[in-house]
Amino acid sequence: MEKIKIIKENIKSIPDFPKKGIIFRDITTLISNPVSFKAVIEAMEEALNLHELDRVVAIESRGFLFGSILAHKLGLPLELVRKPGKLPRQTFKETYDLEYGSDTLEIHTDALHKGDKVVIVDDLLATGGTAKATCKLIKQLEAQVIAAIFVVELQDLPGRKALEELENPPEVISLVKY
Amino acid sequence: MEKIKIIKENIKSIPDFPKKGIIFRDITTLISNPVSFKAVIEAMEEALNLHELDRVVAIESRGFLFGSILAHKLGLPLELVRKPGKLPRQTFKETYDLEYGSDTLEIHTDALHKGDKVVIVDDLLATGGTAKATCKLIKQLEAQVIAAIFVVELQDLPGRKALEELENPPEVISLVKY
Repeated sequence: MEKIKIIKENIKSIPDFPKKGIIFRDITTLISNPVSFKAVIEAMEEALNLHELDRVVAIESRGFLFGSILAHKLGLPLELVRKPGKLPRQTFKETYDLEYGSDTLEIHTDALHKGDKVVIVDDLLATGGTAKATCKLIKQLEAQVIAAIFVVELQDLPGRKALEELENPPEVISLVKY
Repeated sequence: MEKIKIIKENIKSIPDFPKKGIIFRDITTLISNPVSFKAVIEAMEEALNLHELDRVVAIESRGFLFGSILAHKLGLPLELVRKPGKLPRQTFKETYDLEYGSDTLEIHTDALHKGDKVVIVDDLLATGGTAKATCKLIKQLEAQVIAAIFVVELQDLPGRKALEELENPPEVISLVKY
């Protein structure tokens, strides 16, 4: 597909970031080009076209860049999953393991209604830790993750598997695969 | 204006967050309502209507929510100002004082071209520390901040003054004032 080609061409690969041996897929070059940024949003809209959705959940912080436009274009409420201490009202929390240590994500307890059909949005699917924690947060609110959409998927990491092994797994969609 | 009324009605005021005595203006309720989120974007577009702009610079992280849509709708490149260690390529840095301690922001050294006319976008203008550091980063790149736009301005804090005292000050625009 022409759009996917444009998207891939505008992602910069940075060796040894954030540490030696890692190739970082840099989306700042992608959003710095209005043509490739538009291609991302259109490709996401097309991929989600068949789903009936009630809300968009964007994951801090690069997920905000794509989730906000998607919510705006689809005319859906935008809800945030954020790092600890950022959301001012009552939250649910999920802690997940990192390579070294752990991290926590939060969502407002009133962000979703019971039964809401939700798409989660982030820039990158790697180990799936963040996305899986987000799915668990959404489950705590008794809503349903219909789809999880990412700009980039790192296929040698188990992110897709982590999501597909969940009870009621979402459709996992990524635009560009490495 | 009808739009500003809708925006203000959908911002929730949270007493004593993040600490006692502070009233936090919560924009999660604003973006959770597609009508008020749309009103923000339209009001921003109208306010920027008379400016010729080359790029949109969004400030991490809540600035991403509004800056991304604005860039997308205006068909302009989106550039990011981020917290330390997040941008993978060479950056310029600016450190600024907080009430306790200090913080640093970064921008890619190739994010802007010399002479670019830029609007910076964030959710909140309070003390102006973040916005001022962003203006300084943009000046390091020899670009020009034409406008600084915010959803909310806290008028009892010196943010507007801090920006208006800069050499070549931007137009400071806020949609809702407290």
